[in-house]
Amino acid sequence: MQKLKIGIVGYGNIGAGVEKAVLAAPDMELTGVFTRREPKSLKIASETPIYKTDDAFKMQGNIDVMILCGGSATDLETQGPEFAAAFSTVDSFDTHAKIPAYLAKMDMAAKNTTALISCGWDPGLFSMLRMLSGAVLPDGNDYTFWGRGVSQGHSDAIRRIPGVKLAVQYTVPIDDAVAAVRGGKNPTLIAREMHTRECFVVAEDGADKASIENTIKTMPNYFAPYDTTVTFITEDEFRSSHHKMPHGGMVLRSGKTGDNRQIIEFSLNLESNPEFTGSILATYARAAARLAAEKQYGAKTVLDVPLSYLSDVDRLSLITKLL
Amino acid sequence: MQKLKIGIVGYGNIGAGVEKAVLAAPDMELTGVFTRREPKSLKIASETPIYKTDDAFKMQGNIDVMILCGGSATDLETQGPEFAAAFSTVDSFDTHAKIPAYLAKMDMAAKNTTALISCGWDPGLFSMLRMLSGAVLPDGNDYTFWGRGVSQGHSDAIRRIPGVKLAVQYTVPIDDAVAAVRGGKNPTLIAREMHTRECFVVAEDGADKASIENTIKTMPNYFAPYDTTVTFITEDEFRSSHHKMPHGGMVLRSGKTGDNRQIIEFSLNLESNPEFTGSILATYARAAARLAAEKQYGAKTVLDVPLSYLSDVDRLSLITKLL
Repeated sequence: MQKLKIGIVGYGNIGAGVEKAVLAAPDMELTGVFTRREPKSLKIASETPIYKTDDAFKMQGNIDVMILCGGSATDLETQGPEFAAAFSTVDSFDTHAKIPAYLAKMDMAAKNTTALISCGWDPGLFSMLRMLSGAVLPDGNDYTFWGRGVSQGHSDAIRRIPGVKLAVQYTVPIDDAVAAVRGGKNPTLIAREMHTRECFVVAEDGADKASIENTIKTMPNYFAPYDTTVTFITEDEFRSSHHKMPHGGMVLRSGKTGDNRQIIEFSLNLESNPEFTGSILATYARAAARLAAEKQYGAKTVLDVPLSYLSDVDRLSLITKLL
Repeated sequence: MQKLKIGIVGYGNIGAGVEKAVLAAPDMELTGVFTRREPKSLKIASETPIYKTDDAFKMQGNIDVMILCGGSATDLETQGPEFAAAFSTVDSFDTHAKIPAYLAKMDMAAKNTTALISCGWDPGLFSMLRMLSGAVLPDGNDYTFWGRGVSQGHSDAIRRIPGVKLAVQYTVPIDDAVAAVRGGKNPTLIAREMHTRECFVVAEDGADKASIENTIKTMPNYFAPYDTTVTFITEDEFRSSHHKMPHGGMVLRSGKTGDNRQIIEFSLNLESNPEFTGSILATYARAAARLAAEKQYGAKTVLDVPLSYLSDVDRLSLITKLL
């Protein structure tokens, strides 16, 4: 069997996660890593050739799927359509409010290619589960909890405060809220009742810790609507205890059929958020290649792809094994 | 919008569950219930016309999707292909080992129709989650736990023992096993370590209870490989405490990416198993009608259907709302 030729565009945490997943997939080969940095300066985990991003377009026809690992805020809105015009692509675009506009842009660009957008876990797997459980239990409520895990956006917000040297923020679901949902109580929950925010901060020497703590706790949108704790730690403790990127969360549907309560729950417990996201992206590269081979061009999402397209195993074997 | 015209073939617990789901769906109408019994003798929840099963074939063209609610053991293998030749169909065929053969038979029959088979929760939703989580975490193990819930097959097996008047059997997952899987321990588990079996029995007057208990506990395949408890109760207690049909269960994938443990869990907590199965069947009727309209004929499974086909809401609205 011809292996699927994969390119990685952008080599941050997610790009490195994709690299691991592609190297582990027997039906894929990693053809190139593309970076805006000086290729010689980039250290990657494998011996894969590294190219400048712009050189990618000379390789049209030699790469089946480009996995776009740039950030949603900065890279994908321009990079996505450029790549989708030339290659089938997969990305994890995750600015929820901008997804319809991004879908339209990618659809315009992907005239002879297939562009699978927003293939992470939220949006992505969580979206699939909201779709499935809402369809099966139309009379019901959705609940999404995130964590316990690191929120990059909230960690960044703390790091921008003067006097902060290092910081990490964990989003933590509130047990009582989860229990009420699992118990079928269909609670109405405000933000403060669903999650707490735990901040671990290394202050610069001589910084005013009380002022930092106050700035964090009163920050609008990010922290003010939540019960937030701030713990100052040493740089050593930060490096030893907070270097991982765990995450997770759950999507619950609490519904009724007749007088009967029916609850569907999907949950993730992840030691490495970027590796998990990278693994989802690599899996959907298979689907992108297959849709493109069927000339199902344009921009698509996880809601448009039959699940059997995620595997290189033939359909009858899947049915025999999984049903 | 033209409503989807639905027929129900076979009116047991699942048929009654489908009836509730179809009546609650704004985009569907229930055109007929088809039974092998004397139509006048059948009591159903709604005012839907009731017909003899054989009369269904006169209604070709007037019904968009037939939802087949007969039993896998007795009805579907013959009834399925007969109906699929004339109508698009949905069923919850659940004899796992016979699914490939049933798929082939249904595929032969469904020349100008779409036959969606095995659309319950196992096979069905659980199969989808095994597919998805196995694709995303190829290096890992699957675990399926069922219950706490009523197993019809095991309850029937008890009822066939002389001296037994009424019986119900609950399959119960063992907490320690579930905890070990959730904890990422990847345990190797035999049947006895995953589930216990709780039996509640009403004995005939004067029956030898010790003998009944022994017959249950030593029954090969059904009970001998498990830690089984037998509790004799009165008929009153049976009718008041054991008349519901709860069920549920969970599919877990415990995998690794690099050195990191990643766990995906999907669970159901159902007060009414047949109503939930009925609701899934009604949801997949929408997909069957859509696939048929696209001339995607033949036998299909839940692995072949894009999730967006489960809703009557347009694709862009779904993407905007769910992603």
